[in-house]
This record gives sequence, structure tokens and C-alpha cells, in this order.
Amino acid sequence: MNRAKDDSRDIRGPIRSGAWTGSTSGMAPAQVQGNVTILPVEFATDFLRFCQFNPKPCPVLGVSDAGDPSLPMLGEIDIRTDVPRYRVFENGQCVDEPYDVLRWWRDDLVAFVLGCSLCFEQALIDAGLRLPHVERGAAVPMFKTSIQTNRVGRFHGPLVVSMRAFRPADAIRAIQVTSRFPAAHGAPVHFGSPGAIGIQDISQPDYGAPLEVAEDEVPLFWACGVTPQAVVEAAKVPFCITHYPGSMLITDLKNSDIAAL
Amino acid sequence: MNRAKDDSRDIRGPIRSGAWTGSTSGMAPAQVQGNVTILPVEFATDFLRFCQFNPKPCPVLGVSDAGDPSLPMLGEIDIRTDVPRYRVFENGQCVDEPYDVLRWWRDDLVAFVLGCSLCFEQALIDAGLRLPHVERGAAVPMFKTSIQTNRVGRFHGPLVVSMRAFRPADAIRAIQVTSRFPAAHGAPVHFGSPGAIGIQDISQPDYGAPLEVAEDEVPLFWACGVTPQAVVEAAKVPFCITHYPGSMLITDLKNSDIAAL
Repeated sequence: MNRAKDDSRDIRGPIRSGAWTGSTSGMAPAQVQGNVTILPVEFATDFLRFCQFNPKPCPVLGVSDAGDPSLPMLGEIDIRTDVPRYRVFENGQCVDEPYDVLRWWRDDLVAFVLGCSLCFEQALIDAGLRLPHVERGAAVPMFKTSIQTNRVGRFHGPLVVSMRAFRPADAIRAIQVTSRFPAAHGAPVHFGSPGAIGIQDISQPDYGAPLEVAEDEVPLFWACGVTPQAVVEAAKVPFCITHYPGSMLITDLKNSDIAAL
Repeated sequence: MNRAKDDSRDIRGPIRSGAWTGSTSGMAPAQVQGNVTILPVEFATDFLRFCQFNPKPCPVLGVSDAGDPSLPMLGEIDIRTDVPRYRVFENGQCVDEPYDVLRWWRDDLVAFVLGCSLCFEQALIDAGLRLPHVERGAAVPMFKTSIQTNRVGRFHGPLVVSMRAFRPADAIRAIQVTSRFPAAHGAPVHFGSPGAIGIQDISQPDYGAPLEVAEDEVPLFWACGVTPQAVVEAAKVPFCITHYPGSMLITDLKNSDIAAL
């Protein structure tokens, strides 16, 4: 445990100092990375209820006290400095993409850390499955779907999914492996026909890079951590901070800590 | 536990007496039923090695001592009388389909009991999935595939699979649920294109009754307990007894006893 914590501090050090401002994909692969959403406390209860009512896209790993930038359940973290890059929103508009949010911090802010797919991607790789987008260092393709999230208060919007393609026997293994990680989106929500969940063109993702689906492969669709960002934007909260896409919070949790079985 | 044993004895009583000679589908749904293969001891080691090298079609639940018709690990069983109906083979040819095998029993016979899909079908139903063939009281469709089992000695042959069709979200759930039962064939071996595993026409099963696959459904294929029967027939052992298809051995094991997680 001490070693893990030291590793995490070693990893977060260059991020905290501003020496590393890029993607965290492939960094500390055995450790859990998280999506970050920071909201004024007046929206915190509804957002937390939204997450709990939509656990596949929004698995909650940690929540801070209002005004407190630490997240002791996830490590010795200062959420104002320990993410490589941030996005700051006012009334749903992005107004800044800074490398720390010290000057944006307020005493009424609550930080939410939600599970992300990097965790189960590592488990898929450990299970011997190939992920071409990881091998290429590309972002996974993501799509808005016709599946609606469960509305809570002002928070609502379409489920966003990420897509990975496998041959059927590997797809079965991928369903088994990701089922172990409900805190990182869990099993897919759909496979096969993209049209059945409102995806018109699988070669044109709404976010990330396109990914070819071979003749003998089937596309699998997982609930995606971009969903809460899209929902927060749609809710047009007056103020919000998120991580910059791909630049996640690296926590002290090990992937094995959040495996359900 | 006592209640379970009493239930099993109650269930096996009319089978042992010859009062019940039909299918065991739907009988004692919480209890594990098994495929039965009885072979001369000289073939027992190779058959057991074949099962262990092909665990998805041939999950071993119990093996008797040579010449001993009891199976104490599975209940108070006399394998000569406790299956509703049998098939007796000489040199790969079926020579009798009796309701007990008292007159066929020999001191060199070893009884193998292998897991069967009735166990995971109950788990699928308990998970809220619909199985139209069960609702109709029909046999599941089964197909010989182009997937070869792993040969051991004289035992070899094609993998036989059973097919059930679901919409994708239910198919994902079905993969999760059946993964819990490696002793009852476990997760599917394939889904989607029947041609990819050598099935020419999905409306023409090699065994069992045809099952419609709706436009929005995908066929899933599980390793099937008919595989060892087909393998034993192909191996042309001089003498062999099996259960009559659909008329299984009802054991004292509960489905929950063999759930892996």
C-alpha cells in the first residue's frame, strides 16, 4: 500500500508542478484514473442523485467536502492542481482551459470524481485482448445515442457511449472482463447494430477518433464518462470545472481495489 | 440441506420405480441435472482426460468407482435406475433404449455425470430473460460446428452447440449470467454469424427443435452436452450407456452450489 501511494505521488508530482499537462492514457496503468466534475454546492445533491440514478455512465469514486480541494478517500490529492489540464465553464460555455484552477477555486465548490474506461481497458489488455486505439495512442470513438439518461432536476441528456470492436469470442471475454468493473462503466450497454441505439454512422464519432470495424468484428458500446460532461453542459449550470478530455485524475486506488469480483 | 435431499429423493422416487420415464425439463428447477455417460473402465482415463481438456462441452460433476453404481458426491443415487430412460450402444450403434440398465450393468463400468444447460437456463429465467423454447416445452436447437474438440486418445469430434436468441442488451446479461456456471457450459462460445462456426442453416438444427431468431435478436451459441455423446459415438467404443436425450439425472446439488460467483 505504501508503495502504491508513493507511486501515485511520484506520478502526480509532475502534474501538480505543471511539468506534465498532457494525456494520462498509459500512465500508472494499474491505478484508477477518474473523470472530474466540480460544481457549486447548490447543484451537488442533484448531480450526485443523477449519478446514482445513472450508475453506468456516472460511477462515483469520490466526492469532496464543499470548499475543500482534498479527496482523502482517493489519495493525497489537491483537486485544484492534480489534474494535468482543466476546462472551466460559465453558463455552459467554456471560458478557460488552464493547467491548474487555483485562481478559479471557490469556497462553495464540490469535486466529483467518476470512474473512467482506462481502468477496464487495462483489464482487457491484461486478459490478452487487443485495443488498436490504445496501441495507436488514439482516443476511443464516442457517440451520442438515442438512449436517454434518467433525469434528476436540471440534469438530463443523451447517454454517450464509447465503442470498441472485437470478434465474437473476444467480445464475450470483453463482456466478462468489464462486468468486473461496475465502478468503471461495467459491461457494455449494447452491441451490434449501431442504428438500434441511434448512431447513424459508426465511422463518424461525436468525440474521439474513428475506429475501423473489421468484417468479422462486432462493435460493442460502453456507457462513457463523457456523459456527465455533456449533461452538465446541457444543464447550463452557472459555473463548472471539468478535467480536459484525456487528462484525468490519477488516484491512489488500484484497479484491483474496484474490481467487483 | 436435508430438505433439498428429501426433495431430490421425492423427485427421483418415481424415476427409480419406473413411474416417470419422460423428460426432466422443468422438474426440480433449483437442482442440478446432469448428462450421463457410462463406459468400460479401460476407456475411463482417456474420457476423463478428454473432458478435462474440453471443459466447456464436458464439465465433470461426478465420476463413479468402476462397477459401483452409486455416486455419493451427487446424492443417494443408483445410476442403473435413477435416470428416466437410457440408450445402450454397442460399437457405436444404439441397441436398446430401456428405462433402467440393471440387466446391462457390468462390474467394469464407470459412470460420468456432466453438467447440462438446464442449470443455466433456470438462472437466465431467474434473471428475467425469456426462453421461448422452455415456455413451449420444446428442446433447444443444437448444431454440429466446424470447431473441433481437443482430441484425447480415440475421443475426438466436432463441438456441438445449443442456440438461444436475445436482443443485444439481454444477450449481454445472458453472457454475464451463464459465466457464473462453468460447471454447466459457462459463457457462450460464439454469437452472431452462424457461418463463422460452420452452421450452414440456422433454421435446420442437427438436434432439437428449430427456434426463430427475430430481426432485432442475435443468436448466441453455447457448448452443449450432446458433444460428449457425439464423441463417444464417433470413438466407436465397444460398449456405452448414456441418458436418453432430455431425460437427465436429477442430483442433490443445488444450482447455487455450482455457481462460480
